[in-house]
Amino acid sequence: MPSERLTAAQALAEMDSGRLTSVDLVLACLDRIDAREPRVKAWLHLDRERALALAAERDLERAAGKIRGPLHGIPFGTKDVIDVADMPCTHNSPLHQDRVPVDDAACVQLLRTAGAIPLGKLDTVEFAAMGRLARSTNPHRAMHTPGGSSSGSGAAVGDLHVPLAFGTQTGGSVMRPASYCGTYAMKPTWSVVNREGAKMFAPSLDTIGWYARGVEDLRLVAEASGLPASDRPARPVSELRIALCHTPYRDTLRPGAEAALRRAADGLANAGATVEVHELPPTFDGLDTAKDTIMRGEGRAAFMPHLKTHGDGLHADLRSHAENRTGISPLALKAALDYAAHARTVFEGHYRGFDAVLSYGAVGEADEGLSSSGNSVMNSLWTLLHVPVIGVPAGDGPTGLPIGVQLIGFRFADAELLDVAAAVAPVIDPWHGKVRVPG
Amino acid sequence: MPSERLTAAQALAEMDSGRLTSVDLVLACLDRIDAREPRVKAWLHLDRERALALAAERDLERAAGKIRGPLHGIPFGTKDVIDVADMPCTHNSPLHQDRVPVDDAACVQLLRTAGAIPLGKLDTVEFAAMGRLARSTNPHRAMHTPGGSSSGSGAAVGDLHVPLAFGTQTGGSVMRPASYCGTYAMKPTWSVVNREGAKMFAPSLDTIGWYARGVEDLRLVAEASGLPASDRPARPVSELRIALCHTPYRDTLRPGAEAALRRAADGLANAGATVEVHELPPTFDGLDTAKDTIMRGEGRAAFMPHLKTHGDGLHADLRSHAENRTGISPLALKAALDYAAHARTVFEGHYRGFDAVLSYGAVGEADEGLSSSGNSVMNSLWTLLHVPVIGVPAGDGPTGLPIGVQLIGFRFADAELLDVAAAVAPVIDPWHGKVRVPG
Repeated sequence: MPSERLTAAQALAEMDSGRLTSVDLVLACLDRIDAREPRVKAWLHLDRERALALAAERDLERAAGKIRGPLHGIPFGTKDVIDVADMPCTHNSPLHQDRVPVDDAACVQLLRTAGAIPLGKLDTVEFAAMGRLARSTNPHRAMHTPGGSSSGSGAAVGDLHVPLAFGTQTGGSVMRPASYCGTYAMKPTWSVVNREGAKMFAPSLDTIGWYARGVEDLRLVAEASGLPASDRPARPVSELRIALCHTPYRDTLRPGAEAALRRAADGLANAGATVEVHELPPTFDGLDTAKDTIMRGEGRAAFMPHLKTHGDGLHADLRSHAENRTGISPLALKAALDYAAHARTVFEGHYRGFDAVLSYGAVGEADEGLSSSGNSVMNSLWTLLHVPVIGVPAGDGPTGLPIGVQLIGFRFADAELLDVAAAVAPVIDPWHGKVRVPG
Repeated sequence: MPSERLTAAQALAEMDSGRLTSVDLVLACLDRIDAREPRVKAWLHLDRERALALAAERDLERAAGKIRGPLHGIPFGTKDVIDVADMPCTHNSPLHQDRVPVDDAACVQLLRTAGAIPLGKLDTVEFAAMGRLARSTNPHRAMHTPGGSSSGSGAAVGDLHVPLAFGTQTGGSVMRPASYCGTYAMKPTWSVVNREGAKMFAPSLDTIGWYARGVEDLRLVAEASGLPASDRPARPVSELRIALCHTPYRDTLRPGAEAALRRAADGLANAGATVEVHELPPTFDGLDTAKDTIMRGEGRAAFMPHLKTHGDGLHADLRSHAENRTGISPLALKAALDYAAHARTVFEGHYRGFDAVLSYGAVGEADEGLSSSGNSVMNSLWTLLHVPVIGVPAGDGPTGLPIGVQLIGFRFADAELLDVAAAVAPVIDPWHGKVRVPG
């Protein structure tokens, strides 16, 4: 199999057995990028030479028996709102075209320390917020969005440019592109991965997330990031109890999403899992509104330095945010924060006894056109609740584009959710164990 | 008056009237630093030449009628866990001696855009957390600590090295040095000042704060930082209703703190304010424990990159943190976060009708010796509650060292708290309107 089609875990096994070098893997990724990038437009910056030099170093080390960590020799991409030392970090903003940070962001440093190789920077909605959209296209159909704001990250992993990529999520910026691009993704519990060196938007919500082409790869990033391991044994599907949740936003669904969720739920039930419809409490209907209030209220500070420094040079959408033109009052912001905090507590009790919650990955297939990155309503509520989320591909929608589902866990039980996802992915994902090659 | 003794507001008035230049002010600050630094040891880095060059630019601009913002020509210091472009930022850690960031931290950028001049970097407890202590001494008595972790920031402003300085607070790291060094300080509401470019420790708690020698100066930094203005008219002391709160930690007090608080309360009552003892609800007794759990639980991620990259090169105290050696469980962390969130809601209702809460600035005078930066128990609870806090000097303790009090406000009502502080400071601070010159 061409090595760019391997998952990170598969590539590591090949390297362990001497059948693959990191240099070969990086070259294969670069070839795939060269072939596909004119259409997919995932990358804002590629550092071919340094990546190959690092790969050669990792290969020498491996030959000498020195393995740096769980991702030794694996290339990865980084959303361009996250710093990588000595690479430009533009935030896809005209205000930052010349910015070259000297440090890796914390999440990048963790992967680099684990032996992984930063390949380049991936296109993003400006500042992972609003303003300029990414130029990236959906790898499965170029006239459709890959989602956003981690547009390039979802597209690059979905298009086999690179086995792993970082994104960030404040609303639905990691999970929606995963659904649209047919990839796996993980948004861990809020605060368990250090966000230093990533552009912030709303500190109560901002979370580093990552893309991969399988649960095992998601776990490798979690391990490299120092997330605690589970102390409970993993269980087979047949022993899992899954809550099926349609969210308060079911009326926003478009064709295919309902069917994808139903297929996933039926598959799990057929595999012996206990699947029970268990909706969120009625008091959770305001989650999306609260998320919006917090994003706007906290986002004011995120773009204040840009507003004060650049004035009208700042994109009008971001300026409006920093100027609080929507008039979020202190009282409204406090109410939203307190409501969200209360909902976090209630969530834990409401789903006690379940191993995970299963819900839509997005409202439907990827939207046509590149003038919007899509609707985050199916993702934002979980971000607000701070719970870990894993996106799993769940087949195609009516037009043949991917649709995913989300598995939602409990705060700080990220490793447990990875175990659940590993058990259910073979049942949910029709491409499990196979490689979907766009183009 | 020697210009280093001027507050920022006074210096601005002098500059406006043509009696002072920014270059003169910076030179006066540097002279004071040269005279006192061998004893006070506040600074890790000074950029004399660039500061003077910037001051000359600001003077030229002022002469041409161009005022950049509310701090045009005012020098300030920055705690060395906060990035200033092109200055070393070491976090007082041997792991970062060579680090020179290319960007200003957001808070520094805001002040620079407002015309202020970064003078240098101030000593700090390692990573504003634990590990190496600052070498800084208390300007009022060199064998005593200035407090920490913003040790150099409190000492520099207290010793008239610079009118303004940034610190950071996760427990009591801004407010305790203010009390020990006899300065004013402000910790705004959590999240209203962008923390990008400052080392994080516990994201639920970390807050940028600042030191000054008067409330007017605190307000200038708030304005430069884009904090919303108050829409309520400021009121005189006689119209204020102040809650006197002794906290659940009164048994930790040392000589002088109780007397300082009583003097402040009596002064306010004599000035016509309504001062009523109104303690926190009994359910708040766990605030300090919850803060400790959150700091340890969230702090794990803060130092994970250092642990993975440097291993035993990381200070043992920080390593223990990243390795969660105190065994904070997911359940304990969740419980602490939910408890704190609930307490934030309760606080608002419990003190409704009051304009501010008045409490101790610290448990007493600055501790003797430099092997500890003191006890944060009187500050941490307010940090955890996310409320804005202003520290006001309140006279001296039994050995003649300063002791402060804290005024505590309500979330997102930072400007309103500044109004209260401006009204009460002349009553509380015996040095109000005078200059206390250590040494």
